[in-house]
Amino acid sequence: MIKTAIVGASGYAGAELAAMLARHPEFELSTLYVSAGSQDANKSLSELYGRYAGLLDYPLIPLDEQQLSELGHKFELVFLATPHEASHDWMPQLVGKQAVVMDLSGAFRIKDQAVFARYYGFEHHQPGLLKTAVYGLADWNMAQIREADLVAVPGCYPTASLTALKPLHEADLLDGAQWPVINAVSGVSGAGRKAALNSSFCEVSLQAYGVLGHRHQPEIASHLGREVIFTPHLGNFKRGILATITCKMKDGVRLQDVQAAYEQAYAHNPLIRLRKSWPKIDEVAGTNFVDLYWKLDETSGHLVVTSAIDNLLKGAAGQALQCANLRFGFSAALGLMEERQ
Amino acid sequence: MIKTAIVGASGYAGAELAAMLARHPEFELSTLYVSAGSQDANKSLSELYGRYAGLLDYPLIPLDEQQLSELGHKFELVFLATPHEASHDWMPQLVGKQAVVMDLSGAFRIKDQAVFARYYGFEHHQPGLLKTAVYGLADWNMAQIREADLVAVPGCYPTASLTALKPLHEADLLDGAQWPVINAVSGVSGAGRKAALNSSFCEVSLQAYGVLGHRHQPEIASHLGREVIFTPHLGNFKRGILATITCKMKDGVRLQDVQAAYEQAYAHNPLIRLRKSWPKIDEVAGTNFVDLYWKLDETSGHLVVTSAIDNLLKGAAGQALQCANLRFGFSAALGLMEERQ
Amino acid sequence: MIKTAIVGASGYAGAELAAMLARHPEFELSTLYVSAGSQDANKSLSELYGRYAGLLDYPLIPLDEQQLSELGHKFELVFLATPHEASHDWMPQLVGKQAVVMDLSGAFRIKDQAVFARYYGFEHHQPGLLKTAVYGLADWNMAQIREADLVAVPGCYPTASLTALKPLHEADLLDGAQWPVINAVSGVSGAGRKAALNSSFCEVSLQAYGVLGHRHQPEIASHLGREVIFTPHLGNFKRGILATITCKMKDGVRLQDVQAAYEQAYAHNPLIRLRKSWPKIDEVAGTNFVDLYWKLDETSGHLVVTSAIDNLLKGAAGQALQCANLRFGFSAALGLMEERQ
Amino acid sequence: MIKTAIVGASGYAGAELAAMLARHPEFELSTLYVSAGSQDANKSLSELYGRYAGLLDYPLIPLDEQQLSELGHKFELVFLATPHEASHDWMPQLVGKQAVVMDLSGAFRIKDQAVFARYYGFEHHQPGLLKTAVYGLADWNMAQIREADLVAVPGCYPTASLTALKPLHEADLLDGAQWPVINAVSGVSGAGRKAALNSSFCEVSLQAYGVLGHRHQPEIASHLGREVIFTPHLGNFKRGILATITCKMKDGVRLQDVQAAYEQAYAHNPLIRLRKSWPKIDEVAGTNFVDLYWKLDETSGHLVVTSAIDNLLKGAAGQALQCANLRFGFSAALGLMEERQ
Repeated sequence: MIKTAIVGASGYAGAELAAMLARHPEFELSTLYVSAGSQDANKSLSELYGRYAGLLDYPLIPLDEQQLSELGHKFELVFLATPHEASHDWMPQLVGKQAVVMDLSGAFRIKDQAVFARYYGFEHHQPGLLKTAVYGLADWNMAQIREADLVAVPGCYPTASLTALKPLHEADLLDGAQWPVINAVSGVSGAGRKAALNSSFCEVSLQAYGVLGHRHQPEIASHLGREVIFTPHLGNFKRGILATITCKMKDGVRLQDVQAAYEQAYAHNPLIRLRKSWPKIDEVAGTNFVDLYWKLDETSGHLVVTSAIDNLLKGAAGQALQCANLRFGFSAALGLMEERQ
Repeated sequence: MIKTAIVGASGYAGAELAAMLARHPEFELSTLYVSAGSQDANKSLSELYGRYAGLLDYPLIPLDEQQLSELGHKFELVFLATPHEASHDWMPQLVGKQAVVMDLSGAFRIKDQAVFARYYGFEHHQPGLLKTAVYGLADWNMAQIREADLVAVPGCYPTASLTALKPLHEADLLDGAQWPVINAVSGVSGAGRKAALNSSFCEVSLQAYGVLGHRHQPEIASHLGREVIFTPHLGNFKRGILATITCKMKDGVRLQDVQAAYEQAYAHNPLIRLRKSWPKIDEVAGTNFVDLYWKLDETSGHLVVTSAIDNLLKGAAGQALQCANLRFGFSAALGLMEERQ
Repeated sequence: MIKTAIVGASGYAGAELAAMLARHPEFELSTLYVSAGSQDANKSLSELYGRYAGLLDYPLIPLDEQQLSELGHKFELVFLATPHEASHDWMPQLVGKQAVVMDLSGAFRIKDQAVFARYYGFEHHQPGLLKTAVYGLADWNMAQIREADLVAVPGCYPTASLTALKPLHEADLLDGAQWPVINAVSGVSGAGRKAALNSSFCEVSLQAYGVLGHRHQPEIASHLGREVIFTPHLGNFKRGILATITCKMKDGVRLQDVQAAYEQAYAHNPLIRLRKSWPKIDEVAGTNFVDLYWKLDETSGHLVVTSAIDNLLKGAAGQALQCANLRFGFSAALGLMEERQ
Repeated sequence: MIKTAIVGASGYAGAELAAMLARHPEFELSTLYVSAGSQDANKSLSELYGRYAGLLDYPLIPLDEQQLSELGHKFELVFLATPHEASHDWMPQLVGKQAVVMDLSGAFRIKDQAVFARYYGFEHHQPGLLKTAVYGLADWNMAQIREADLVAVPGCYPTASLTALKPLHEADLLDGAQWPVINAVSGVSGAGRKAALNSSFCEVSLQAYGVLGHRHQPEIASHLGREVIFTPHLGNFKRGILATITCKMKDGVRLQDVQAAYEQAYAHNPLIRLRKSWPKIDEVAGTNFVDLYWKLDETSGHLVVTSAIDNLLKGAAGQALQCANLRFGFSAALGLMEERQ
């Protein structure tokens, strides 16, 4: 069993990770940490999540400076489900020791240092780590992930978007001039577990936000290798993302070309389902699947593809675990085929 | 036109009041205040509530000590949609001047001073005002409300509960020994407009709370004139309350007795609907109605009655306005028959 | 008072019409009809909609052949909130008499007869009426609507989409080659009041449908005057539509050009709100507003505009009433500024 | 592996059963049947439930008379997730052969034959089977279930209610005169998978139904051994039941007595959680737990206890599987501790 810790275990993604690790056959969930000043410190996870009563009664240990410096020695695998700035600041103390680090924040996802000041609101001071970090798009970057010491686990919207777009781009089916248009709706859990007026029950109602300026836009573009328009929305549901993507295809592209591109990429991947009808968010909520379905208008050359995921699982904790499976030599889907809620 | 101010206009009930007053034929909505330290100060109401864009672009004036002392002179009618403690502390400066005060808080609803320390968490220091305040149960206390200078507008749960129970109690149909059991479910807006983990979208799910200790229990009991069991629940919807009330009736009570009691109480009241089927919350949301329906098992002597209201309207702002209508000599339902959302 | 009937009053749009007409100062709601075989025949509207108990206790009269033939003589204004085929089949008996007809179905919205076989599933046999019918886009086609005897009231998605796109198209700001991409999410009431597995509570979850083949696509394209990509979605809420539209602009278009186009089109229109933030669906639900907000990336030339409406009001019953206001010489917004739910 | 069939596998409970059986270590899911005339016949389960795409692609075999007569020979375990009347009519052909039958319908839950005409709308013609059927309240009737050939799996509301009330009744803590008052709210999936106006998305809103006449009232009363008041409600969520139960206790009952009663009944039962706070429905949705929490007012002698379950799992499919575990000598919770959605 591989000794494992989660830092930031009180949040929605951290708690999902804890639940999956607690029954994973190869990783041993040793310790759950929260930041030292957290009001959840020293509570148990099941006090925060009544759902886990009797199942995950782990204490939430406040992480002080001393412990932080020892994490890399004490564990073989550390998941950071922490704010971007915390991951950024703590990473130099973590990497380069025994532990492999899976970072669920955005702090190491993009190679271009300048993006952070503009989209994340902080200056990035770890150019070396930015360079060595591997982008954990687990259905694509398997080889690199298997060698990585620091994996930057992708964001939720990029996971849904890239899974749909990369097969088309790699097969060179997309029109060169027109940018793919990604419209995505996320459940409120994407905003994290916190008191905020924006995510209070009475204030939530379908709405666009972060238009033409969301931090996931450069993440998608840089890992796809071309520009896109990305418009996120907040929806009135708890979990899941549905991304609806409209693309202009190259002249002469036929439905069979699209089908072939997706099958080549995913036919043998148990976590990606090429569906026979338009996926609903509820059909993937609580799972680690990506569900894809598409339609092509061969006359006008427009393709619409929708991609549905659970934002906390495939879009965060589940993909982090998939990366850990790869890194430690297990089957990618180990512990990921069971449903969660 | 009667010159009117709202203090605490940024909250859900205050904003509903503003919307109703803005189109009321007799009250002139002059000024909206928020507490001096509010982060909403100097914004417009429509910045907080996009729904009111172009309709209610009133500024939210921060209320300082100076203005507080002048409110009673400056307006003929002042609504307080403020926290209990604020109403308690400010009231001596407000009453006894020109303005009639409608207090939507709980600070003056119960005659027994001792209740406040136990159920509200503060000591009450205004015994004189407690004595003169009139409980604004607008379908019952019309005569007193017409004379009042300070009206304590009832809570949302007590409004739903008392409207259902008072006709039975006044007609002496209830068994003397067994306490009526009130189970009620409220929409999340009952918790007010604020950032709080409890009312964040992902945390809300049907749940009991405040069991055998909620502050509305003594309010219901004292204004009904007998003890009750009251169990509130939080429901996963925005507005409305459904109270389901189970009573043991006196021996020999027949369905026609119950029918007669309700008809005597409400047959001519346009705001109370004696329904022909079990009311749904959505059927009263956005309205000032109380919808009642009941069934009696004559064999066992048990009655079940459900009472549905909009918690922000009939349960707060609407009843406050109904009290104001009565106090200034207008028809009780003036400006209250139109729907709101 | 203008004598008015509604045919198809038991459905969601028909019932909304009834509620608005019942308090309209100029139209007299005389009779509510349902089709002869309807299981709702001879019930009252408030039996179907508990919300209207005591308010709209009108009977639902079954419409037989005899009455159908007399409608055009008996009323000055007839609203058809009926299925497409019913409107198509009945129209010849209705028009050309005294009554002005407002048809909420899609049967007369598109001039091209061939569209009906392909998108509506029936052959259109009324080429003459197709030619004379006026498309009731009430904020644009005022002059024609004022003269019309048969108004084809626009669909819900086209209303949201055209209101956003027409100012850009008329001001010639849109790139000629790239098609605007419309992604829209509708509440479930858009599917109508009926028993259907697709719209049953447990089956509803955000999902695309009718992709690259929905009947509202030719409606939008033909009344805009250029092609578009239109992808509708079903959302897990009752009312409202949010359309998110992504457009490539002509080279050199600046934000001020977009602003000017919208202001020229709508600055004096009380029913269209040029917002200062991204509209939420709840902010227009129960109203007759169209709320618009947009952002332009001047560097890449992409514009994202969102348009929010209530699908049953501005997207159906409210716009029908707006057309009737115009047709009978009243102010366009008469009776439409009050909220409904 | 024990050869197992499900009859009625297309419904919500049947599909949950299929999902649990498909990964159960001891039962082999052999065949899924639907009734011969079902429109789902010959589809795969995953066509109906996109959630199961790639996971449960079993065909739904139409069950004709011939197959029905052979079921009892062909399988060792048959689950009936069928309408009450179907279970009633088919049972004589099923029992008395090789197969153990778990009936999820209400057809064999109550010993008193007369109840069926009054509460179920059909005359019961199987008095012999009624007598031998064992009520599958799996946390109480273990010994009988282990010997049974026909198990009548309890209803959802009775499961939630009896789990909360039986420890109090068995410990003789309940006042003899006053009837416990059960108020329960169920998610819409309780109404089954079907097209019905009542359960269509736009019509659902919190509402009482079946008041003082629901078929689960005699089921609860007869298996508790005393009368109760039971008031069910439909809530605006998909899954789960929250039952809030108010009881008058015998004079002198103390909190420690209540605690002792629950601990004696359930302390070693992994499927029943004695919680430390009021359970939310979401905390049990997708699980096989019953979550209990209570508060006693020692002064007045009133106890409020809430009981939360997933209506489709613990309230139907999960309890059926728990009974099967017992019947075949496995641990009661085998295959039931994993979450589902």
